[in-house]
Amino acid sequence: MSSRQAALEFAHKSMEDFLEDLILFLKIPSISMLAEHDPDIRMAAEWLASQIEKFRFNDVAVISTDGHPIVYGSYDKAGKNAPTILVYGHYDVQPVDPIDEWDSDPFMPQIRNGNLYARGASDMKGQIVAHLKAVESYLDSSDLPVNIKYLIEGEEEIGSPSLENFMKQHEDLLQCDFCLNADSGILGVDTPSLTYALRGIAYFEINLFGPRSDLHSGTFGGPVINPANVIAQVIAAMKDESGRVMLPGFYDDVVELSTVERENLAQLPQTEEWWKEQSRTNALGGETGYSATERATSRPTLDVNGLFSGYIGKGSKTVLPARAMAKISMRLVPNQDPEKIHQSLEIFLNEHIPAGITWELSDLSMALPGSIDLDSTMAKSAVRALESVWGKSVLYKREGGTVPVVGLIKEILGVDSLMLGFGLPDDNLHAPNEKFHVKNFHRGIQSYIHFMNNFAN
Amino acid sequence: MSSRQAALEFAHKSMEDFLEDLILFLKIPSISMLAEHDPDIRMAAEWLASQIEKFRFNDVAVISTDGHPIVYGSYDKAGKNAPTILVYGHYDVQPVDPIDEWDSDPFMPQIRNGNLYARGASDMKGQIVAHLKAVESYLDSSDLPVNIKYLIEGEEEIGSPSLENFMKQHEDLLQCDFCLNADSGILGVDTPSLTYALRGIAYFEINLFGPRSDLHSGTFGGPVINPANVIAQVIAAMKDESGRVMLPGFYDDVVELSTVERENLAQLPQTEEWWKEQSRTNALGGETGYSATERATSRPTLDVNGLFSGYIGKGSKTVLPARAMAKISMRLVPNQDPEKIHQSLEIFLNEHIPAGITWELSDLSMALPGSIDLDSTMAKSAVRALESVWGKSVLYKREGGTVPVVGLIKEILGVDSLMLGFGLPDDNLHAPNEKFHVKNFHRGIQSYIHFMNNFAN
Repeated sequence: MSSRQAALEFAHKSMEDFLEDLILFLKIPSISMLAEHDPDIRMAAEWLASQIEKFRFNDVAVISTDGHPIVYGSYDKAGKNAPTILVYGHYDVQPVDPIDEWDSDPFMPQIRNGNLYARGASDMKGQIVAHLKAVESYLDSSDLPVNIKYLIEGEEEIGSPSLENFMKQHEDLLQCDFCLNADSGILGVDTPSLTYALRGIAYFEINLFGPRSDLHSGTFGGPVINPANVIAQVIAAMKDESGRVMLPGFYDDVVELSTVERENLAQLPQTEEWWKEQSRTNALGGETGYSATERATSRPTLDVNGLFSGYIGKGSKTVLPARAMAKISMRLVPNQDPEKIHQSLEIFLNEHIPAGITWELSDLSMALPGSIDLDSTMAKSAVRALESVWGKSVLYKREGGTVPVVGLIKEILGVDSLMLGFGLPDDNLHAPNEKFHVKNFHRGIQSYIHFMNNFAN
Repeated sequence: MSSRQAALEFAHKSMEDFLEDLILFLKIPSISMLAEHDPDIRMAAEWLASQIEKFRFNDVAVISTDGHPIVYGSYDKAGKNAPTILVYGHYDVQPVDPIDEWDSDPFMPQIRNGNLYARGASDMKGQIVAHLKAVESYLDSSDLPVNIKYLIEGEEEIGSPSLENFMKQHEDLLQCDFCLNADSGILGVDTPSLTYALRGIAYFEINLFGPRSDLHSGTFGGPVINPANVIAQVIAAMKDESGRVMLPGFYDDVVELSTVERENLAQLPQTEEWWKEQSRTNALGGETGYSATERATSRPTLDVNGLFSGYIGKGSKTVLPARAMAKISMRLVPNQDPEKIHQSLEIFLNEHIPAGITWELSDLSMALPGSIDLDSTMAKSAVRALESVWGKSVLYKREGGTVPVVGLIKEILGVDSLMLGFGLPDDNLHAPNEKFHVKNFHRGIQSYIHFMNNFAN
């Protein structure tokens, strides 16, 4: 019997036990945002470390940070010729408000209609345990065909404030060939898919200053340059009529979609109608020449996220404002670089803001886009794994959102992240009645077994 | 001795008494904004009515409204061939906060360096009493050469909420040849001037609605039309590069400045440097082809007074906003009509707002611009009066601000308003240490005597 077969059989006969272990883990209310749950956070980290210790991994530790601890553990018996995979995950969960809208206690996991309901089930304790159980199943009869390093943090839901420093301090420890980010999902319960690209972000706040204090618009309207009018002009100038972003060199580094990619994206179930329904709008817009799915996932954007100037209460106040503020973010696609975008925006503002208006530009959030080469071994191994388990072809998709840790890992460790997780779009992440499909938990374990095994071949 | 000479002599010998009466009036804390001062409001109205009663005017009354009462009284002995002048004023005053910054009690008038310090001294009890004392001086020896109707309200500092209804209900009572609005001033203590035009206003709130609720800018950025970007584009499109307003037909009704007017305005002490200093900016802007003073007083404007969309707190929130709001006001010049501007804005919005974005347009404040014919008898009488008292030429100026009552009187009674008052630019209106120049109080009385008398000639 092959190692793979043995592992799959072990997983199959252990189904109930594995689910019990997941339920145990889900009962720990490891809410990172609320200080009163700090002991739970610690307990979740310790529980994880004890699981990894059972595999006799090296250096298994719950490592302190300025915030919540990080769980680490490594396996290197596959040898130097086998790839080393950094498995990223997080053991912290979102708060449970509004608690009234839960049909069962968020920390008393309950199975209904084939779904396991609990806070953190899909985001992402279910996925961590799936990976652990794949490793356990494989190790039951064989050594692993790959080297593994677990990096499981407890602050993902609060923006990973300690992760960057941790990674910089432990750069050597974290060296790897690629990252497997299990905080991900597939398109549908019977629709296996691979997310092979994510957008990055460059999020700025721009403040424009005109007169030193607010003025009366009757007395001064006319000769005085109004920063609120100027900010509107500047924002308007950022896009042309076809929806293209006009910052200098904005598209220089953009990797255009290939014909094959466009064909693949066209096969996804996300039609124009689907986008309208999901966004609850009655017409779509954006850059011409691309489908809605392409515009949402594979093209860079420029969106105003916040606007403020002058008087915004009820009624009228005849104020000529001293200041105008805009929060503006750009979603970036491979290989755009948020630092270059900052420079480009600075040049653009210099050109477009008239004398008499001073301004400040600050970075609010910067993250590199991510993508993997579909011809790489890791991508092919993932696709073969999913196709083996589901018995059907994988759909190739890209995400419009940003996973900052993917950008951080690229920046600090220099490696790409394979998004390989088993959440579903309707899993109610961050919302009441979060769930994880039990069948997908088992398929996830199987997929990770196949995935590891595909490197042995 | 002429009637004028007799009146001027009476005024001269009564100087101290007149000032005492003004001080009495100023001691009444008739703050319209604060309900605890309602008895003071009533007392100020009664005091005024008692003054007018002494002249044996007709119909003298303190007339109730839904808010504070209006003081009325009329004089018609000048006969049908003499003009009837509606004298507009207000007896209410602003609150006194910040009280700590006053050098003397705001309701214990004090004379320092030739100025009378008290709340309401310049805005505008000093000017009402000046007019009353001119009438008293004239009546001491002669009948008045003009008919007069006093219309003195108690709600000017809270936006005159009862005035429009009152005027509509008493349209017949208020019939007149023109209005003398004493709530006005001159350029400097030794610089007599006539304000012959005021700007009107059309102030709107525009709300744009995109997706039915805020969306995640990563998931939906691209295909979804962002109302915050759209509002910026719409506002930017409202002006061309030379600062001209692009609403259709916006300039159709604008009365262009004559060569003489431009020469007159160029003689005012308001240089470009002065405008920079006053507005505390280091560069001016606005419509090309006009001086700063012209842009501030004689050209229509379009200013954003308020902007709001999305997330405006600290840091970043990746929101694609459901709504964007702008408050936008246009200052209007003769003969622009705020109703036509509304229609024009509606057409403009229809043209510029894309499908998928719904919108609402609401009027916040509408007032007609005002101007008087400098060749009219009232204007010439005013100029001759000022030149007689000051012994020097009058400067002709226009105001950038709006006096809503001027528009209201034009709309309801169909007459223009002559702005003839004696405040100074540094009188600290609405601020601590409000003052009225004592010399100007007496010059004001003299000017009103001359003004009336000029109709007798």
